[in-house]
Amino acid sequence: MSVPDAFTVDATDGAARACTLQTAHGPVQTPVFMPVGTLGTVKGVDPRELTEIGTQMLLGNTYHLHLRPGEELISELGGLHRFMGWDGPILTDSGGFQVFSLAHTRSIDDDGVTFRSVYDGSAVRMRPEDAMRVQELLGSDIAMCFDEVPKPDAPLAELARAVERTTRWAERCQASPAAPGQLRFGIVQGGVDEALRAKSAADIQAIGFDGYAIGGLAVGEDRDDMFRVTQSTAQLLPVSHPRYFMGIGDPEGILRVIAAGVDMFDCVLPTRLGRTGAAMTSRGRLNMRNATFARDPRPLDEDCGCSTCQRFSRAYIRHLVAQKELLGMRLLSVHNMAFLLALTRSAREAIVEQRFDAFLADALQRLKTGTD
Amino acid sequence: MSVPDAFTVDATDGAARACTLQTAHGPVQTPVFMPVGTLGTVKGVDPRELTEIGTQMLLGNTYHLHLRPGEELISELGGLHRFMGWDGPILTDSGGFQVFSLAHTRSIDDDGVTFRSVYDGSAVRMRPEDAMRVQELLGSDIAMCFDEVPKPDAPLAELARAVERTTRWAERCQASPAAPGQLRFGIVQGGVDEALRAKSAADIQAIGFDGYAIGGLAVGEDRDDMFRVTQSTAQLLPVSHPRYFMGIGDPEGILRVIAAGVDMFDCVLPTRLGRTGAAMTSRGRLNMRNATFARDPRPLDEDCGCSTCQRFSRAYIRHLVAQKELLGMRLLSVHNMAFLLALTRSAREAIVEQRFDAFLADALQRLKTGTD
Repeated sequence: MSVPDAFTVDATDGAARACTLQTAHGPVQTPVFMPVGTLGTVKGVDPRELTEIGTQMLLGNTYHLHLRPGEELISELGGLHRFMGWDGPILTDSGGFQVFSLAHTRSIDDDGVTFRSVYDGSAVRMRPEDAMRVQELLGSDIAMCFDEVPKPDAPLAELARAVERTTRWAERCQASPAAPGQLRFGIVQGGVDEALRAKSAADIQAIGFDGYAIGGLAVGEDRDDMFRVTQSTAQLLPVSHPRYFMGIGDPEGILRVIAAGVDMFDCVLPTRLGRTGAAMTSRGRLNMRNATFARDPRPLDEDCGCSTCQRFSRAYIRHLVAQKELLGMRLLSVHNMAFLLALTRSAREAIVEQRFDAFLADALQRLKTGTD
Repeated sequence: MSVPDAFTVDATDGAARACTLQTAHGPVQTPVFMPVGTLGTVKGVDPRELTEIGTQMLLGNTYHLHLRPGEELISELGGLHRFMGWDGPILTDSGGFQVFSLAHTRSIDDDGVTFRSVYDGSAVRMRPEDAMRVQELLGSDIAMCFDEVPKPDAPLAELARAVERTTRWAERCQASPAAPGQLRFGIVQGGVDEALRAKSAADIQAIGFDGYAIGGLAVGEDRDDMFRVTQSTAQLLPVSHPRYFMGIGDPEGILRVIAAGVDMFDCVLPTRLGRTGAAMTSRGRLNMRNATFARDPRPLDEDCGCSTCQRFSRAYIRHLVAQKELLGMRLLSVHNMAFLLALTRSAREAIVEQRFDAFLADALQRLKTGTD
């Protein structure tokens, strides 16, 4: 079922790993942060800028692309890569997370989910087979199984039912057709209950996938619980396959899931912060609306080599943000992603050079220092 | 007063001219379209993209930059070029046009204008000396005189008074300090009255400037009147100096002012259209919201070599526009400016090769054809 040749572990340091994953659109070196291209575009950013900052793999949202503009249209135009002008690897989620987090009106049964579209309120039916069919037509390099994502405060019985259903759906996903060369990842659920996580991890591995994701975390639960469960779950996943934490994008969180043995992660945070005027830096977050920066000639982050930091001052970016200029959102979005990608590359270097603990302690300390 | 070395006429064909203007930030080949960077940014576009599409010179708005973030701040940060990351030539307008078109509450006297800021409603006083001082601090390559811009339907007596005041103010502008190497252009007013235009052209030339602008047109008057007055006024301006038509950006308009002997022009139209979902093409305008384009695999303009047309389909751009994605505004803005810059370069080639009449007739015909 799995494709062992597609994945090699290049180095480990404690639980942290540096690996290489082969995809139909080229290799990916982990740990890897995946910018999110919700609707076939990383909001406000050009694919050329993504390449320039060292983006290796993008994430596309099955839920959104299914509704707008639709996978049939994208397929007709040559698939998602060609449609959005990105020739590198793409992972598509299955829509599970959006179905359960965005939809107000929905009904779940063992066969699938019926929900209301966030775009026009129409009723949409999605079964595991539908989610895989959408991803097949999109032609992504990695397709995710359709899972049930319970609320973080759901009672144990509900979590257990979601784990069970996620396993049944994973079997159906695995039995569905895939695009040529498309890898397929299973998703482990179970909330913050370690016993349920262990059961889910065993069940999903028994089906057999090209990689394994930890889903249903970073959805509002206590952060220490999240890291604890990530750590214990990661250790239950096979060393021979990639591990993907779905939806984390703050620098501290990224460093801590890497420390837990996670290889891949994604989040809209860097672009969302960029559009609201915030900069990520090695010393914490800057609110660029702040008048403190009005005459500050320094770059957003003096250690950053991105095209924003090489060319523009905090004063200029503060001016753009204050005037709601589109360029401000762009420059901040590019910088924030460049920062996360550089942080992740540094983590890989530290793992390869067997100094990850010191790197982690130093990076976390600096993030807490705050900026001047 | 003038700097004859700074300007050479390379070729003429009928009234149309191909010239070279030397500025403190390098040479500019005319005819030249200047994208508008209102608040120190061409809306949504990166300076690197401006360079890539062949932008030679930008326009900055004295009115806006004076109010946000202020010329003192920009000067402290190294001037407008450095502030906005653009190392090429910049022309700044004087704020005259905005003072008269944006301000609801204002009082004009012979000494200057008092108006309400569009940003916070505060009362702002601007005299000719103030407009030149702002431009001196911005450090633009070309500064424009502060002029009175009457409404297109103003009675003759009012037009005559505006011409008279514009001349008095031009004398005071010429007597004000300039930034090192900064050229200074006078502005001809007079509405659509040819006699007043002739008087204004003579008065402004008598003062003596590095270039001459035709102001107060494209403000709502009849379009045939506009072209008629442009043609007659351009012929009254010295062949030895650059001629600048303030504020035209539609393809037909650009071609016709070039035919009238104008060398320079600017407009927010390509970026404004881009932000509202419209594409300029050699066969007219496309409304990219239109469902016709939903599955259209072709580029916006099959004859265009810009980075938008080389990489993205109409279908993709229609999707971005329909979903209000920032990238759609960017890609359209870049394409629209690239289209106007390429059109203007083609006009120069045609002038140099003495086939401008045929080029003009062909280009105007194609623009009218409409797109398929």
